[in-house]
Amino acid sequence: MPRVSEAHLAARREQIIEAATRCFVRNGFHQTSMQDVIREAGLSVGAFYRYFSSKAELIRAIAEEKVGSILATLDHLLEQDPPPPLAAALAELLTQVDANLAKPDGPVRIAVQVWGEAAHDPAFADLIGGIYGRIRASASALAERARSAGQLPPQADPEAVGAVMVGLVQGYIIQRVLVGRVDREVFLAGLDALIGHHPAVRPPAP
Amino acid sequence: MPRVSEAHLAARREQIIEAATRCFVRNGFHQTSMQDVIREAGLSVGAFYRYFSSKAELIRAIAEEKVGSILATLDHLLEQDPPPPLAAALAELLTQVDANLAKPDGPVRIAVQVWGEAAHDPAFADLIGGIYGRIRASASALAERARSAGQLPPQADPEAVGAVMVGLVQGYIIQRVLVGRVDREVFLAGLDALIGHHPAVRPPAP
Repeated sequence: MPRVSEAHLAARREQIIEAATRCFVRNGFHQTSMQDVIREAGLSVGAFYRYFSSKAELIRAIAEEKVGSILATLDHLLEQDPPPPLAAALAELLTQVDANLAKPDGPVRIAVQVWGEAAHDPAFADLIGGIYGRIRASASALAERARSAGQLPPQADPEAVGAVMVGLVQGYIIQRVLVGRVDREVFLAGLDALIGHHPAVRPPAP
Repeated sequence: MPRVSEAHLAARREQIIEAATRCFVRNGFHQTSMQDVIREAGLSVGAFYRYFSSKAELIRAIAEEKVGSILATLDHLLEQDPPPPLAAALAELLTQVDANLAKPDGPVRIAVQVWGEAAHDPAFADLIGGIYGRIRASASALAERARSAGQLPPQADPEAVGAVMVGLVQGYIIQRVLVGRVDREVFLAGLDALIGHHPAVRPPAP
């Protein structure tokens, strides 16, 4: 019997992750059984369980992979010299969200489900909290570089700015999924108006 | 037999909503059965079904009620004359979120579950989209008043600013639930730094 190559294993794993993504976007985590994913992937039960043994493992693998593409975007932004304006970085992240939401089975919808799971399941929250912590850490690193370049006041806390940036992207996703009637241009214009050099808009000093 | 008073009906309804809220926060929508809610409410099956006939109805009632308290805060802000700085309005909304998250069964966690449901269930998204549309409409009205008072540039689109404000509150909730290590003061300080009169931070003109 020939040995199964690494490439073959990786391709099978990817095939399962894509099948599970389609199922979860269509029906949600809870209405999707392992049987549904196995059928969608077109694999035998035995072959399937060599890769994943539970739904939680599948969800974590999907989250890792999708978050990986966001982290790649952030890494790319972190490598720019001089560092990009943070608004340009936000625009690039929202562009990625838009491209994803344009696909009917875009995995951004899975991210929103993941947040919903984390809200009531502490074990699941632990499982994925680290993944989302990495995103915030990268956004914070971006804010730190922006501060060094004089784009932010010297006393700015990069972690706080990173949390706001990631929160803005997540809030944009929720607004698009829940209410609609907003796109990247509109949202960025709204942010621009809200932040546009008007002292009365600044939060009161703590 | 005495007639059941309106007050009695309202109290029973509230009793069920509170019981369902506790169940959903503890176990999530999908792992909670109608039986679980009936048991938690301490009612007979017959009494229960006079008020609610499905889980979707219960979830909508909870969403209506919780969103009602956010709308009340927005109404209160809308009545202020002169209109409050938008940052002060944001701070008041985040204060309400914090008070809610401090309670172990705070219904903000249900909101995050609701968003997750809406992401994969179009019928549910329709059901609650209108409710969230009302929040954005109120935030937009607040932005419109702020613009009239000269807090925003004359060309600002109030609906866009409203979407950003609501998105910021939702992003804050997700950041607190998923990653932690952020509170209202930190988040508002981060927003202040991000928006702090630094032209390089402004989005590029469209």
